[in-house]
Amino acid sequence: MKIIIVGATGTMGKHLSSAFEREHEVIKAASKGTDIQVDITSTESIEAMYRQIGAFDALICTAGPTYVGPWKKMTDNEFRKGVEGKLMGQINLVLIGQHYINPKGSFSLITGALTYEPQLNFANASAANGAVEAFVRAAAIELENGIRINAVSPTVIEDSPHYFSFFPGEIPVTMQQLEYGFRKAVFGANTGQIIKPY
Amino acid sequence: MKIIIVGATGTMGKHLSSAFEREHEVIKAASKGTDIQVDITSTESIEAMYRQIGAFDALICTAGPTYVGPWKKMTDNEFRKGVEGKLMGQINLVLIGQHYINPKGSFSLITGALTYEPQLNFANASAANGAVEAFVRAAAIELENGIRINAVSPTVIEDSPHYFSFFPGEIPVTMQQLEYGFRKAVFGANTGQIIKPY
Ligand SMILES: NC(=O)c1ccc[n+]([C@@H]2O[C@H](COP(=O)([O-])OP(=O)(O)OC[C@H]3O[C@@H](n4cnc5c(N)ncnc54)[C@H](OP(=O)(O)O)[C@@H]3O)[C@@H](O)[C@H]2O)c1
Ligand SMILES: NC(=O)c1ccc[n+]([C@@H]2O[C@H](COP(=O)([O-])OP(=O)(O)OC[C@H]3O[C@@H](n4cnc5c(N)ncnc54)[C@H](OP(=O)(O)O)[C@@H]3O)[C@@H](O)[C@H]2O)c1
Repeated sequence: MKIIIVGATGTMGKHLSSAFEREHEVIKAASKGTDIQVDITSTESIEAMYRQIGAFDALICTAGPTYVGPWKKMTDNEFRKGVEGKLMGQINLVLIGQHYINPKGSFSLITGALTYEPQLNFANASAANGAVEAFVRAAAIELENGIRINAVSPTVIEDSPHYFSFFPGEIPVTMQQLEYGFRKAVFGANTGQIIKPY
Repeated sequence: MKIIIVGATGTMGKHLSSAFEREHEVIKAASKGTDIQVDITSTESIEAMYRQIGAFDALICTAGPTYVGPWKKMTDNEFRKGVEGKLMGQINLVLIGQHYINPKGSFSLITGALTYEPQLNFANASAANGAVEAFVRAAAIELENGIRINAVSPTVIEDSPHYFSFFPGEIPVTMQQLEYGFRKAVFGANTGQIIKPY
């Protein structure tokens, strides 16, 4: 299977890349330091990435920049980080990518527990997650040719201890659990699902 | 109670205005044809509206433009209608309005059943709803001075028969039920809730 991982240089992306490249052709993308470079906040850049890669079977996205910071500083300006990044970035990966993906291919996006369990400082990520999850359900009834779409929604992950203090009492999802979540999304048959790998 | 209704000239807004102005001071706002004019896609316009009105007790928003149309035509461009309108428009009404609202005041936003029950042609509204609902939960733990925030999420409403064919089998919410939903949001004590008035 030919699998694109957008966000391949990140905490999640590195783990998923090394897990999946044992058995599949993995194409790693991020804004720098990868063979394929892409800025998901730009539709031109997304279009260029897909043109360069050509037909593929699965897109995994673990790139989802958002504004993390005190509510008091959260204005339209800060909020745009997640709206252009995690929200429209991922939605555009699908709206554009549907024209390049193989029949029966799949899109697997990243959200997170913040959709339903907010934490101080993370309202922008909550909103982006909520949008992406509702979009996944809507896109699942629109996509043709057996193309599937799901989101993986972990709590804070094991390899991100710098986030633990922001998520008091949240039981971290292990990297193995996260990988299982994406395995279900990519290699399973479901569509329109929000997969909680815990 | 001094209540601002943004979207007061619309199907929902007209009903809520006439229901609430019997007992409260209702300030009607929309992009035209009202005493107070506001374009929720502009932060300057929102700021100007609040400055003009001054302190208030409740904001109801039933303005939430989205792109409705075939998936095949849905690109970044069409998607922006809901992102700038129903999504950032409502979020900015809160981010800015929190500096004008009275202690113990409330924000009551509009979403809809499309968050969880998608329909063909409405992916943009689904995404906007999902974002607003997750934002409501996140904002509820951030807002201070007893300020509350909720969303009302109806199915298709009784007074919008032109939408019925898009929502096969959906039991319409009556205008009375919709009003009850907003009554719970404005006059109740809950916060961070998505109120389904059915
Ligand atoms: N870490 C957690 O505990 C956790 C838990 C739940 C959900 N999440 C969500 O999961 C996602 C990934 O988390 P992570 O910890 O793996 O993040 P991360 O370590 O910061 O990695 C992010 C990846 O995305 C890429 N990226 C960022 N902006 C991009 C852009 N505009 N265009 C293309 N690529 C871009 C980065 O590459 P460049 O550096 O080259 O830009 C990097 O490869 C985030 O959306 C986060 O909200 C994280
Ligand atoms: N109708 C339904 O069956 C139904 C069901 C569930 C959810 N919803 C949601 O409920 C919301 C309202 O529905 P509705 O049927 O009452 O809509 P509507 O009849 O079209 O009314 C929309 C109102 O919002 C105002 N508005 C639109 N864009 C604006 C902007 N940029 N700035 C300020 N005001 C603006 C309009 O005023 P102007 O004309 O002056 O712009 C009008 O007062 C929508 O978000 C819709 O998705 C509707």
